[in-house]
Amino acid sequence: MTTFSAQLLPQVRKQNPLVHNITNIVSAHFSANGLLAIGASPFMSSSLEEMAQVADISSCLVINMGGVSDNEVAAMIACGRAMNKLGKPVILDPVGAGATPHRQSVAKRLLDEIRFDVIRGNAGEIAFLAGVDWQSHGVDAGTGRVSDLGVLAKTCATQYNCTVAISGASDYVSDGVHTAIIDNGTPLFPKITASGCLLACVVGAFVAVADRHKDAIFLATVEACAAYAIAGQLAADGLCDEYGSFYVRLIDKLAVLDNDTVNQYAAVRYL
Amino acid sequence: MTTFSAQLLPQVRKQNPLVHNITNIVSAHFSANGLLAIGASPFMSSSLEEMAQVADISSCLVINMGGVSDNEVAAMIACGRAMNKLGKPVILDPVGAGATPHRQSVAKRLLDEIRFDVIRGNAGEIAFLAGVDWQSHGVDAGTGRVSDLGVLAKTCATQYNCTVAISGASDYVSDGVHTAIIDNGTPLFPKITASGCLLACVVGAFVAVADRHKDAIFLATVEACAAYAIAGQLAADGLCDEYGSFYVRLIDKLAVLDNDTVNQYAAVRYL
Amino acid sequence: MTTFSAQLLPQVRKQNPLVHNITNIVSAHFSANGLLAIGASPFMSSSLEEMAQVADISSCLVINMGGVSDNEVAAMIACGRAMNKLGKPVILDPVGAGATPHRQSVAKRLLDEIRFDVIRGNAGEIAFLAGVDWQSHGVDAGTGRVSDLGVLAKTCATQYNCTVAISGASDYVSDGVHTAIIDNGTPLFPKITASGCLLACVVGAFVAVADRHKDAIFLATVEACAAYAIAGQLAADGLCDEYGSFYVRLIDKLAVLDNDTVNQYAAVRYL
Repeated sequence: MTTFSAQLLPQVRKQNPLVHNITNIVSAHFSANGLLAIGASPFMSSSLEEMAQVADISSCLVINMGGVSDNEVAAMIACGRAMNKLGKPVILDPVGAGATPHRQSVAKRLLDEIRFDVIRGNAGEIAFLAGVDWQSHGVDAGTGRVSDLGVLAKTCATQYNCTVAISGASDYVSDGVHTAIIDNGTPLFPKITASGCLLACVVGAFVAVADRHKDAIFLATVEACAAYAIAGQLAADGLCDEYGSFYVRLIDKLAVLDNDTVNQYAAVRYL
Repeated sequence: MTTFSAQLLPQVRKQNPLVHNITNIVSAHFSANGLLAIGASPFMSSSLEEMAQVADISSCLVINMGGVSDNEVAAMIACGRAMNKLGKPVILDPVGAGATPHRQSVAKRLLDEIRFDVIRGNAGEIAFLAGVDWQSHGVDAGTGRVSDLGVLAKTCATQYNCTVAISGASDYVSDGVHTAIIDNGTPLFPKITASGCLLACVVGAFVAVADRHKDAIFLATVEACAAYAIAGQLAADGLCDEYGSFYVRLIDKLAVLDNDTVNQYAAVRYL
Repeated sequence: MTTFSAQLLPQVRKQNPLVHNITNIVSAHFSANGLLAIGASPFMSSSLEEMAQVADISSCLVINMGGVSDNEVAAMIACGRAMNKLGKPVILDPVGAGATPHRQSVAKRLLDEIRFDVIRGNAGEIAFLAGVDWQSHGVDAGTGRVSDLGVLAKTCATQYNCTVAISGASDYVSDGVHTAIIDNGTPLFPKITASGCLLACVVGAFVAVADRHKDAIFLATVEACAAYAIAGQLAADGLCDEYGSFYVRLIDKLAVLDNDTVNQYAAVRYL
C-alpha cells in the first residue's frame, strides 16, 4: 500500500450489486439515486417481515441509524445477523450516535449484535463509538479536542475489529493496521443533507464487489471515499453556495465518474 | 382504436384530481412533485386511522408496494376496499413483487382483497404476477425468456381482469382485448429511482379523469404511459449520463407538457 | 412596528440552531436541505423512544402534521410537551388539518396538549383551526368565502394565543395584536410539494434565534416568511412552469440569501 490506484468502479458498474440500505425518511430518495449513479442496484426495505429474505438476495447491507424506533432497530438487527450468517458484508452509518442517550444505546446494541465490516461516520459519531470525549451537534460533526483523526479512526477500527472511515474536510480510513488520508472533497458536502448517508452506501457498493478479506475491504473503503469525494469536488466546481445545484450535480458526477478521473484527482496518502 | 390521439391531459390540469398515493420513503417526495407537475393534487397518507376517510375525498388511489410492513399492508387493504366500495379507481404498483417470499405473499393478498383497475410494473414484476418464470433483480426488471411482452401484458390483464402496463424500453399496455405498444422513452428512466412509482401515479391521474368503463381506462393508461415516456424523452435530450439533471428535468417537462407535444412525439401502435 | 427591517438571518447562520422537525416521508429530505440552506442544523427524528431527549438538545421543534398515525402523534405530543416544559419554542404545521375527520381530531388534540408559539398553514388549514367555513382540497389550500385573510390570521392567533402565519399569494401573519401582510412570493410555491413544510421549518429557525417574548416571535415569523418568499421570488425569476428547476433553485437562493437582499425586495406592510 504505497500508491493509490482506482480499481473497483468498473466492477461496480458491471456487477450491479444489490445494495440493501435500511435507512430513514430523509436520505432514502437521495441514497437510492446515488447508488444507481455509481452503478449499484438499491433496495431500501426496512420491513421486519422480509429482512432475512432480503439478506438472501442482496450483496451488501448498509445500516443507517437515522431512524431509531424499536421496529427499525429490530429490522436492522434481524437483517444484520442474517447477513453475518451468510458471510456477506455489513456497513454501519451511526447517524447521530452520540446525540441522545437512546441513540447511544442503539449504537452499542447494533455493535454488540452485528459484526460490521466497515463503520462510516463523521468525527463526532466515531469519537462516541471510540469512547473519546467530543461535543457533537445533533447529527452534525461538532467539535472535539482530538488532534489526529487518523489516530481516532485507528483506535475505533481496533476496538471493533473492522475498517473505520471518518468523513470530513479530509477523510481518514483505518483498519487498525493501515491508515489512509484522503484530501479530496468540498466544503459543500456538509451543506446538503444525507451526503454522509450516501457515502456509506457507496462504500457498500465497493465492498460488495471486493474480496472478502480485511485488506481488500480496507482498500475498497479508501477507493469508495476517494471516488465520492472527487465526484463532490467536480460537482462543486464553479459553484459558490448553491446547495440545491450541488446535490443534483453530485448525482450527475457520480454517474459519469470513471477510474481515470479518480486516479487523476486522487489525493490519497497511506500512513 | 386505430390511431393514438392525446385527450385527457387538459382534463387532468383542469380537474386537478386528488390522487391518493400509499407509498414508501424512497418515492414519496418525487411522486408528489410529479403529480403536481402533471396537474393533479397529491395526498400521500398511509395512516391506517384515516384510510377510509381519505377514500371519501380522493379521486383515485395508487397503491405502491414499496413498503411491505404489516401496518402498511393493512392501510393498503383498508383504503383499497373502501375505494372499491365507492366505485373509485385503484392502481397497483407491485414494487419488487417477486423479489422476496414476503413480497410475493403481499402481492397475492392485495390482488385477492382489492379489485384493481390498472396494474403498472416492470417486466419482472408483471411476470411474477402472471406466474411466468423470470429472474428479477431486487426492485429492478431483471431478465426473462418471454419473447413477447405484449403477450405477457395481455395474459396478466386477462388473469386479473384489469388493464396491465409493463414499463421498459418500450411500454406494453393491455386490457386483455386491446394491446398497445409505446415506443417512446429514454434509457435514463431506470437510472433514476422511483421513475416507475411516479408513472403509476401519472396513470392514476389520467384514470381519475377518464370514464369508468374498461375501454376508457385502457385508453387513459396508454395515454398516461405515452405522455410520461415523452416527457422523459424530452428531459433526456442533450443529456448523457447526468442522472441528477434528468430527474429534475423530468419534473420540468411533465409540468410544461401539452396534448400537441404528446401527439407530435407519440409512437403508439395498437395490436 | 412601522417599517420592516431584516434582522435575524445572520444570527441563524451564526448560531446554527438545531431545529427538530417531526415530519413525513414527503417533506423530510427537502426540509432538511432547506434548513441547511438557511443556516440551521436539521434533526428529523420521530422515534418516540428519544423524543424527550431530542428536546434537551434542540433549539426549536417544528411539528409537521403530514403523518398522523398513532405512533407519530404520540411522538409529537411527547416532544411538544417536553419542549413546553423547557420553555423552548414549538411551531405547528397543521398539514391537511381539515381534510379528514381523523386529521381534524389530531389537530385538536395537538392544540389541546401542546402550547404552540407559531402556527403556519395555508388558508384552508387555518380556517379549519379557527372554525371558519372553508372548502379545502386535500392538503391544498382550497377556497373559502373569507374576504380578509388578515382577519382570519388574527382570529386564529387570538384563539390559540400565538402567532399565526397564513401562506398564499400573499402571506398574512398575526399575533392577535399586530398583523402583517407580505406581498412577496411566486405562483410556483404551491406547484412544488412541501414548500409550506419547509417554510414552517424556516420559521422555526428564525424563532430559535429570537427573544422569547411575543413581539419578538411575531417579528421573527414575519421575517422568516418574507425571507422565504423572496428566496422563492428570486428562484422563480426567468422560469415559467419548470417546477423541478424551481425546487432546486429555491434551495440555492435560500443558501445565498442575506439581509440586504431581503430588505431590497421586502414588500411587508403592518396593519
